[in-house]
Amino acid sequence: MSFTNSKFIAIDAMGGDNAPESVIKGISRFDKNSGCHFIIFGDENKIAPYKKLIPSNVSHEFRHTDIVITSDMEVMSALRLGKKSSMGLAIQSVQSGESVAVISSGNTGLYMALAKIILKTIEGIDRPAIATLIPGRNGKSICLDLGANAESDVKNLVDFAIMGEALARSIFDKEDVKVSLMNIGSEEVKGNRLVKRTSEILKKLFDNYVGFVEGDDFNKGNVDVIVTDGFTGNIALKTMEGVAKFISCELKDTINQGFLAKLGSLIASPALLALKKKMDPRLYNGAILIGLNGIVVKSHGNSDEIGFENAVKFTLNILNRDIFNRIRDLIDKSKLHDVVESLGGEILK
Amino acid sequence: MSFTNSKFIAIDAMGGDNAPESVIKGISRFDKNSGCHFIIFGDENKIAPYKKLIPSNVSHEFRHTDIVITSDMEVMSALRLGKKSSMGLAIQSVQSGESVAVISSGNTGLYMALAKIILKTIEGIDRPAIATLIPGRNGKSICLDLGANAESDVKNLVDFAIMGEALARSIFDKEDVKVSLMNIGSEEVKGNRLVKRTSEILKKLFDNYVGFVEGDDFNKGNVDVIVTDGFTGNIALKTMEGVAKFISCELKDTINQGFLAKLGSLIASPALLALKKKMDPRLYNGAILIGLNGIVVKSHGNSDEIGFENAVKFTLNILNRDIFNRIRDLIDKSKLHDVVESLGGEILK
Repeated sequence: MSFTNSKFIAIDAMGGDNAPESVIKGISRFDKNSGCHFIIFGDENKIAPYKKLIPSNVSHEFRHTDIVITSDMEVMSALRLGKKSSMGLAIQSVQSGESVAVISSGNTGLYMALAKIILKTIEGIDRPAIATLIPGRNGKSICLDLGANAESDVKNLVDFAIMGEALARSIFDKEDVKVSLMNIGSEEVKGNRLVKRTSEILKKLFDNYVGFVEGDDFNKGNVDVIVTDGFTGNIALKTMEGVAKFISCELKDTINQGFLAKLGSLIASPALLALKKKMDPRLYNGAILIGLNGIVVKSHGNSDEIGFENAVKFTLNILNRDIFNRIRDLIDKSKLHDVVESLGGEILK
Repeated sequence: MSFTNSKFIAIDAMGGDNAPESVIKGISRFDKNSGCHFIIFGDENKIAPYKKLIPSNVSHEFRHTDIVITSDMEVMSALRLGKKSSMGLAIQSVQSGESVAVISSGNTGLYMALAKIILKTIEGIDRPAIATLIPGRNGKSICLDLGANAESDVKNLVDFAIMGEALARSIFDKEDVKVSLMNIGSEEVKGNRLVKRTSEILKKLFDNYVGFVEGDDFNKGNVDVIVTDGFTGNIALKTMEGVAKFISCELKDTINQGFLAKLGSLIASPALLALKKKMDPRLYNGAILIGLNGIVVKSHGNSDEIGFENAVKFTLNILNRDIFNRIRDLIDKSKLHDVVESLGGEILK
């Protein structure tokens, strides 16, 4: 594959708890066959010890900056320094058209704020959202918003659905994606005004809107897209992490309690290891800040090299199709406007 | 223990998927030493086959009605028939002062509606809530609201905190209970207007308000009370159920995949069984519809006899102390009013 045909991906080497080591090691797993060329932004002094870890067949280059956005930074000072930081420069590489995507493990709030300033929100979308893949029994679902917005109105939820649908078409590589809306019951009469109104619109907007789903649908994998407000979505996502941790700790306690349990788990260990591998949260690392004019991917703050590797894989998956055209199609078309008109016009307020 | 000193508990024998069998078998586990006398409301023809299952040392009596509230009933017809139904008569037994508590596995929405009409809401509380115990690594937490209200305002959340605190003092049998508020971040600046405002009030209202908690705190057991709006709480609770089911299915798949895994799990089976027992959702069966003038306990719709037994245990735990006096204390005192005044008066809107 020639260099000019490569997908240029901008990498913030300095974000997250294990940077830059985890970042450098993570991208080292993508050789020229991946079609990637990495532009790595960060402090050359801190990156130096890890430079030699990158195999020669990984296409990459470095861009130095000693300014780093840290999690404990005030928003105002982060924004002031932002454009010169490794995170800001990486985002600008997308803005200039040099890179097709940016990946950072840095602070989500500051990343969103900087990306909004530099890339701007897609015309017609009021507020970007955070979306990620959630594993379930029958497959994965794209879920959004996971906390970019503490408050959402009907227009926001409709936007989330539009962005989620475009994202799912790209990631699952199919046209016919099932869109659903999170609620406290699956019957039409259930829920608050926000979800009832949103549901009326989604019903008319999508051919494959399947209606309301409930909390226990997150891990079923029966739908492609689960739309929720950012407050609920964030709490639900963290609840999932908490339950998984609780169960795995209790399981460990149980196994460590007796000789037979230890022996049994030892014999079953290849299978338990396979399960652990399957449920490994690092495999699901990678969230997109969607609604901006560019692919902006967030890797978990404490992700290691395997986590970062999966954030890159997630990014490559999104690049499969042009999700922006799909989003613009859905927004541009007078369809949404017509739907709103047909429902009395005031529905988005 | 003399009959006159018994705690009279009104039982709806007809609610839930496994009624009346699971109900009859569940209460059969409480002999006279429990201090309980059960008044069992339901259809004598349907109860007859199970009557002989009740040991003679279980203090009980039957009250016949052939009217049953079913889940598929319209709200209006449920309310019309309600007072003559097994559920309605059981609630009235609390209203008349005959029983100290009522337990039903019937439809939650209809149960709440009937209980509101018959028992009325506690003066000063705008809306009742659903509360239950959630297991965690370091203990259990009382969590509310879990879905009685699809929309909540600041006053509702403050009421939930007051009721949750009173409930926790009773169930955990201590004065010094830690109250927390569910949010999408633990920093003070995080969250929507609703939780920020509520937090300001709770800070002044309780000595032991610990501030915001996040989704992964549900299963930590570090706080005694977790306050949340009913929309978020319901979705989080069902998310927990979904994750637990997902993990246990994946674990089963893994064990069934290979000979060694099967052998290992066979050897470890006493320990795995102990874990299964510890995580058994039936052990956490029992939710209270709190905010009404009486103890109204909901047992899960598909609970079996062990589930129903635990709903009775949960009820007996609540009866330890007089939670109503505590709730009235917190509301009656001008404290709440003063707090609101000090914050500008308009905060509850």
